[in-house]
Amino acid sequence: MTTHFYYPDRELQDELSCIAKGLVAPGKGILAVDETSSQMGKRLELIGVENTEENRRLYRQILFTTDAKIAENISGVIFPPEALHQKTDDSVPFADVLRKKGILTGIKVDKQFVALFGSEDEFTTQGLDDLAARCSQYKKEGCSFAKWRCVLKISKNTPSHQAILENANVLARYAATCQSQGLVPIINPDILAVGEHDLDRCQKVAETVLAAVYKSLNDHHIFLEGTLLQPSIVTPGMQSQKSTLPADIGLCTVLAIRRTVPPAVPGVMFCSGNQSEEEATVNLNAINNVPLCKPWAMTFAFDRALQSSVLRTWGGRKDNVVNAQNELIKRCKANSLASIGKYIPGSVEGSAGTEKLIFDALEY
Amino acid sequence: MTTHFYYPDRELQDELSCIAKGLVAPGKGILAVDETSSQMGKRLELIGVENTEENRRLYRQILFTTDAKIAENISGVIFPPEALHQKTDDSVPFADVLRKKGILTGIKVDKQFVALFGSEDEFTTQGLDDLAARCSQYKKEGCSFAKWRCVLKISKNTPSHQAILENANVLARYAATCQSQGLVPIINPDILAVGEHDLDRCQKVAETVLAAVYKSLNDHHIFLEGTLLQPSIVTPGMQSQKSTLPADIGLCTVLAIRRTVPPAVPGVMFCSGNQSEEEATVNLNAINNVPLCKPWAMTFAFDRALQSSVLRTWGGRKDNVVNAQNELIKRCKANSLASIGKYIPGSVEGSAGTEKLIFDALEY
Amino acid sequence: MTTHFYYPDRELQDELSCIAKGLVAPGKGILAVDETSSQMGKRLELIGVENTEENRRLYRQILFTTDAKIAENISGVIFPPEALHQKTDDSVPFADVLRKKGILTGIKVDKQFVALFGSEDEFTTQGLDDLAARCSQYKKEGCSFAKWRCVLKISKNTPSHQAILENANVLARYAATCQSQGLVPIINPDILAVGEHDLDRCQKVAETVLAAVYKSLNDHHIFLEGTLLQPSIVTPGMQSQKSTLPADIGLCTVLAIRRTVPPAVPGVMFCSGNQSEEEATVNLNAINNVPLCKPWAMTFAFDRALQSSVLRTWGGRKDNVVNAQNELIKRCKANSLASIGKYIPGSVEGSAGTEKLIFDALEY
Amino acid sequence: MTTHFYYPDRELQDELSCIAKGLVAPGKGILAVDETSSQMGKRLELIGVENTEENRRLYRQILFTTDAKIAENISGVIFPPEALHQKTDDSVPFADVLRKKGILTGIKVDKQFVALFGSEDEFTTQGLDDLAARCSQYKKEGCSFAKWRCVLKISKNTPSHQAILENANVLARYAATCQSQGLVPIINPDILAVGEHDLDRCQKVAETVLAAVYKSLNDHHIFLEGTLLQPSIVTPGMQSQKSTLPADIGLCTVLAIRRTVPPAVPGVMFCSGNQSEEEATVNLNAINNVPLCKPWAMTFAFDRALQSSVLRTWGGRKDNVVNAQNELIKRCKANSLASIGKYIPGSVEGSAGTEKLIFDALEY
Repeated sequence: MTTHFYYPDRELQDELSCIAKGLVAPGKGILAVDETSSQMGKRLELIGVENTEENRRLYRQILFTTDAKIAENISGVIFPPEALHQKTDDSVPFADVLRKKGILTGIKVDKQFVALFGSEDEFTTQGLDDLAARCSQYKKEGCSFAKWRCVLKISKNTPSHQAILENANVLARYAATCQSQGLVPIINPDILAVGEHDLDRCQKVAETVLAAVYKSLNDHHIFLEGTLLQPSIVTPGMQSQKSTLPADIGLCTVLAIRRTVPPAVPGVMFCSGNQSEEEATVNLNAINNVPLCKPWAMTFAFDRALQSSVLRTWGGRKDNVVNAQNELIKRCKANSLASIGKYIPGSVEGSAGTEKLIFDALEY
Repeated sequence: MTTHFYYPDRELQDELSCIAKGLVAPGKGILAVDETSSQMGKRLELIGVENTEENRRLYRQILFTTDAKIAENISGVIFPPEALHQKTDDSVPFADVLRKKGILTGIKVDKQFVALFGSEDEFTTQGLDDLAARCSQYKKEGCSFAKWRCVLKISKNTPSHQAILENANVLARYAATCQSQGLVPIINPDILAVGEHDLDRCQKVAETVLAAVYKSLNDHHIFLEGTLLQPSIVTPGMQSQKSTLPADIGLCTVLAIRRTVPPAVPGVMFCSGNQSEEEATVNLNAINNVPLCKPWAMTFAFDRALQSSVLRTWGGRKDNVVNAQNELIKRCKANSLASIGKYIPGSVEGSAGTEKLIFDALEY
Repeated sequence: MTTHFYYPDRELQDELSCIAKGLVAPGKGILAVDETSSQMGKRLELIGVENTEENRRLYRQILFTTDAKIAENISGVIFPPEALHQKTDDSVPFADVLRKKGILTGIKVDKQFVALFGSEDEFTTQGLDDLAARCSQYKKEGCSFAKWRCVLKISKNTPSHQAILENANVLARYAATCQSQGLVPIINPDILAVGEHDLDRCQKVAETVLAAVYKSLNDHHIFLEGTLLQPSIVTPGMQSQKSTLPADIGLCTVLAIRRTVPPAVPGVMFCSGNQSEEEATVNLNAINNVPLCKPWAMTFAFDRALQSSVLRTWGGRKDNVVNAQNELIKRCKANSLASIGKYIPGSVEGSAGTEKLIFDALEY
Repeated sequence: MTTHFYYPDRELQDELSCIAKGLVAPGKGILAVDETSSQMGKRLELIGVENTEENRRLYRQILFTTDAKIAENISGVIFPPEALHQKTDDSVPFADVLRKKGILTGIKVDKQFVALFGSEDEFTTQGLDDLAARCSQYKKEGCSFAKWRCVLKISKNTPSHQAILENANVLARYAATCQSQGLVPIINPDILAVGEHDLDRCQKVAETVLAAVYKSLNDHHIFLEGTLLQPSIVTPGMQSQKSTLPADIGLCTVLAIRRTVPPAVPGVMFCSGNQSEEEATVNLNAINNVPLCKPWAMTFAFDRALQSSVLRTWGGRKDNVVNAQNELIKRCKANSLASIGKYIPGSVEGSAGTEKLIFDALEY
């Protein structure tokens, strides 16, 4: 609790703040396509496309060459490292394609999860070694922000004190390192959806985890104005049988965040986890309709919930590209509306319907 | 970090929320007259009035019988235990006098400070023994909220980890006990003005202390919606020579609070410490003019900064009572304006002028 | 984690060390008779004696006027406050009777347990208010050491982080206050025997609780050489069905303590909880026979396990006093042997046989 | 503080315990030659030898081919990764050479230090990424234990809470990972000698740091019996002017360790830091002569204090090899005597005399 410490210098503060605010500009959210090659393979497998670097490039090209109007709803895209060096058919680096549209590029900097020895099958996230050097390089290559995912599991005895403490600390170390190199850290303590727990338990876990994260960020003197939070939406466990109203999900999510996240944080960008496209949009809309003061942008940094219909529509066929891009535009627009609480449930239908892309949460 | 715990039942949550919201209703603040008899003695001494229970009663009667329009600006009054059994000349209990005006009564429940053994002259606050029983009794006697003050000192090596941890914990235990009995806890981690530190150091201390307090409240499962925070205004130390603009004081104060206090807390009610009446009002006004989102009411729970002119005008003479009450009305109105950022510095002059009532911060 | 702090001055260090070492002199332990009047009532009820102050005095007189050779095995006696002002039939204060035998007097300074709001029926211990003044007075009245009991419950979700943290902190505050007044604090984090847990779970709870306690003592700069630990013996829960060998109990207890208690602590004095006289003695003996380095005296501070036979033999009848005192002498001798690992199980039979005095662990 | 967790299985516990006990067998210590290539270069430069891999190999060959009787005093050697694949002139891997003598091989697994952003020039240590895989490989290659160094700086405001917390956590994560792969972690929180602080300050820092480390090891469920501690000796800062008696250094060191290190830890192996050969030996001897119970082996894991004379005598010349090896044997014997408190100061003279090898503590 030493009270002698330093914040970034003024110039760096301004740079970080500006990026963070830009990412959560009204009506905008993030398109997260930071799947590792292996994770990407699972998605391509669903549509019968082989998992080669070229196919991954082709798929990403669809997303990034979508009409510029997508920038009305998308402020940033999170890349896996592979995508940073990929280019369009015309040899334009993807990051440049996005920049021309006014979209910021972010980069996934975490590495493989590792088991916490002695725990009930809990994890921490690797990636701190040489992180400053990597961040410095990513910054030079045009990245403005970064992402690091930690996973927490809800079961009878978890998340444990050990897992909460360790993941809070590693997120803070990641955040400090990013900020030192001019990248805005997106802090993603992902509370997994797996489990039989009810909504209330999930809310309490979220409150406990987030309180630990923000204490740790304070211990490490993180400049909160230059960070963003990417939490999970508070939901009952996937194996819980109860159906839950979006309004209840929205309320519990907002309560948990209001009780733990300081308003200096510019924005909260939810991950969509295993939710279907429509489900995620409806939940985000519900969150934004909770009649409580929410001093942050509460928007989306969705992954699968922005890609199911694109994938399904594309199917690996060139002549489907435009249709696939239209799916993306629709979905981004839907989530943009949800981020200001104006989405009408059911009003935007995706070609993937209610499909949920459920993968192993720990695969990397 | 156990994630199995309970919040108060719905009914108690509603009751606590309702009290807390009422106390920070727009344009309203708290009149803190919770001076112990000994502290009251110092104030009476200044105006040559003997420190007897009757004189203390007479003085409080002036405050509480002030015209009912004061309730436009005052939502609650904090009593010392002695005042709870005092009555007007007409034998109406003070708490009833206030209730008729629509003003809530609060009660100081902390006891003497004690030194932390091994520390560099730091302190914790006593008062937890039998606190539930006392709160229960105070609730029956008409109290709606409580106050507990902890003191933190800024010096080369303080506040220490020991002091920060201990005071955060004791505030959480106090808060839990109040909530269990239906009283809204006002959480007052008072960072003393004594010292040579500059504004920046004070801000960092405030951030560190408040982060520890809110982590501890989370550890103890406090229902934040049913609490209020009473922090110090972030200022340079009294022995620091630099003069500081109210705008800078306002900014540093708002930054510190935005970085540490979750928005579930309904309101932040500053204490005035050693500041003069006008100084406190101007600082509060500056706080409310900081162009950053402040998802709380930011208002006053002033003690000396609402009483200097009243005391000076009264002077212990019956024929000055009405004038003294007018001073109180003026000052409450000035602070009400400041709490919405509409006070024009210098526009309200009190009879005490720029007098600062400076007493030993640790006297009890 | 401030590293600027102070230990007691040299003279006070020496005084505290000397008391602590004396209490754990080889072959000696503590006779704990710090039952409150209400707890005492339960014991007297068992033998049909009315719970009056005079009867409590008579009973204590039996214990304290036992032949002086008891001082070979008993280094100290813990009093409840009531006993401090009681005297023998000849008007000699009990503390003086003991002093003449070379036995130190300790005093119970904790007060009623209180529920932790929001917890699954967990508790903390009151008694910090005015503790310094009380300790100062007790010191003047001849006390050399003090005791404070905290209770931790093992169940599916407990002990919780909240309970572990709070009780560790309150024990540290108590310890600091005692040391400041020249009393050696006996630190008693009592992990209750109630529950269905097995031996392994109890050991892990003990390790977690004790690690938290010693971290908190460090945070509060406690002079460990002037403290003693009174832990529970690690056993399976009372409602667990498995029978357990004393050797296993001994091993798990020693492992837990070796993993958490710094050797600067002069001694570990177990409480006997719900164990019968013989059971407690056999367990203590087993602890001292574990073939691992134990850099502390590991001895007894038994309550019921030193009193069952005395109570049964006395039965409230004057002509049984000498026999009752002989029971006490026998039991103290048995435990003295156990404290050096030389007790032969079954070799000392008490009149209470295998009787277990089981009361509500939270009664006060 | 979850109390549900697992220790390593019995077999792994036994393996780790056995290695740890072997390393601290009576009269034995560790020869630390884990200098990185760059650090090694600084040592070679002193004697005018070029820093090539071959020269580093030649130098290490001197150490490892020293007469087998060195194994009476040396239980283990710490390698830098480079040395693990180096061989003698006869193509025998160094690790095999040592194994034949009954000496265990350990491996430095930490990586470069990195600045803690926002701190007053404090650091943490990298190396957790892929650590399990590296440990697994090292184990296959014959390593039995590992080492990881963290550095803490004493200055007016440091070590800070941030640095203490972070380094304690990273040491625990390292320890857990090592244990999971069958390597005994040597835990080295190195409190640097640089500074103007006095002996008392250093002791308090050591107590605070070690208490945090052992709390963190508990949080991460480290099996303490399978770990070793490598602390600094408690001394005044290098820039402090006061001369200090070895007896005072010994006492303060022993006090700090007795107050913080649980006896389950099998041994404490000091690093020699900037001390000269004789100074380190004398201090170790003084530590072992402190008349307080020390339930651990307290021995040496010296680096420069075992190598100065070897380096000076060798001077890069083949014909000095035997003399250099004799210097090593003498020094090991001297420290062996010191580790049981039987060294007579001044009785063993090294060719390096009182030379202190002082390098940048943060070089890697």
